[in-house]
Amino acid sequence: MSKRIAGPEIEKLIQLLARVPGLGPRSARRAALHLIKKKDQLLVPLSQAMTSAAENVRVCSRCGNVDTTDPCTVCSDPRRDPATVIVVEDVADLWALERAGALNAGYHVLGGTLSPLDGIGPDQLTIRQLVSRVAEGEIKEVVLAVNATVEGQTTAHYLTDQLSGMDVRVTRLAYGVPVGGELDYLDEGTLSAALRARTAF
Amino acid sequence: MSKRIAGPEIEKLIQLLARVPGLGPRSARRAALHLIKKKDQLLVPLSQAMTSAAENVRVCSRCGNVDTTDPCTVCSDPRRDPATVIVVEDVADLWALERAGALNAGYHVLGGTLSPLDGIGPDQLTIRQLVSRVAEGEIKEVVLAVNATVEGQTTAHYLTDQLSGMDVRVTRLAYGVPVGGELDYLDEGTLSAALRARTAF
Repeated sequence: MSKRIAGPEIEKLIQLLARVPGLGPRSARRAALHLIKKKDQLLVPLSQAMTSAAENVRVCSRCGNVDTTDPCTVCSDPRRDPATVIVVEDVADLWALERAGALNAGYHVLGGTLSPLDGIGPDQLTIRQLVSRVAEGEIKEVVLAVNATVEGQTTAHYLTDQLSGMDVRVTRLAYGVPVGGELDYLDEGTLSAALRARTAF
Repeated sequence: MSKRIAGPEIEKLIQLLARVPGLGPRSARRAALHLIKKKDQLLVPLSQAMTSAAENVRVCSRCGNVDTTDPCTVCSDPRRDPATVIVVEDVADLWALERAGALNAGYHVLGGTLSPLDGIGPDQLTIRQLVSRVAEGEIKEVVLAVNATVEGQTTAHYLTDQLSGMDVRVTRLAYGVPVGGELDYLDEGTLSAALRARTAF
């Protein structure tokens, strides 16, 4: 803005909102104005929720999930099958898989992928913690739910190496055509993988 | 989510973020996770900015703008021409016109448009305050920058009536082809208006 048109508190709010993913400079202004107009219904509760989250959030020492308790809600849920653990790169992946709700298992959040060029080796991820969890003996299957990228696959291979010789089955997500996907728009890699992994109809 | 995967503080944060314009349920989760990961750089400053905005925001008693001071930053800016006032429906319109920065004038925020069916008459808007400001004698031109909708135009006509007989020029925004607009995609109303208001090249 060329001239100041609002007090510093409002300008600051707009600047910070613009850094929230999903909002840009333009929608940050719109969001700020909406928040100000809905002060009691939205602005005050949201600022309280943020303060409370900032005070209470911690990383689960067992699985690497973020939550307000340690161990986290997922780790302390007695209804989950303790024999299966799904390994994900990031908490966002954990949340995405939980929305799918296909497997009633525990999780392990790596915190990223191996990337030697960026200085991310095994010790920067929670790989040692995963090996310890498996060594406890209760886990019978480790599902590698890492991204289908080069980094994800490198990390998956490293994990398989680390877990070899232990009494645990290591599996990975199936490759194939996404549900609702049109073949014409899919890349050759996905199509070859889907053909190779074809199943009886 | 079928099962709880995070503590109530995080769920609450996601629910409230989903009500911010520009964010939906999906991007609210992404935003919440980003905020949690950037706790010190973003979550804490943003919650403080919100608290501060919530405590300090007020409506300018002179022009209806929202700001942290009363009179607002715009009303108390000595560099603005006090002889011109731009009448807008909403604070968002004020901000939009300020970004354009074309006129160094004051503003008057109506707070909506006349809409008898919704119970919004002249007393629900800041029309009386506008007439008082004009009656003070300093304002020489009132620019009606209301939306080009039926409600906006009805309100503009009502305002013109109220200001008739006072020593003030009432003008409105020009109608025409938006800059960058392609004629083929414009509606007939805009095209006729642009033709009628044609100017020498």
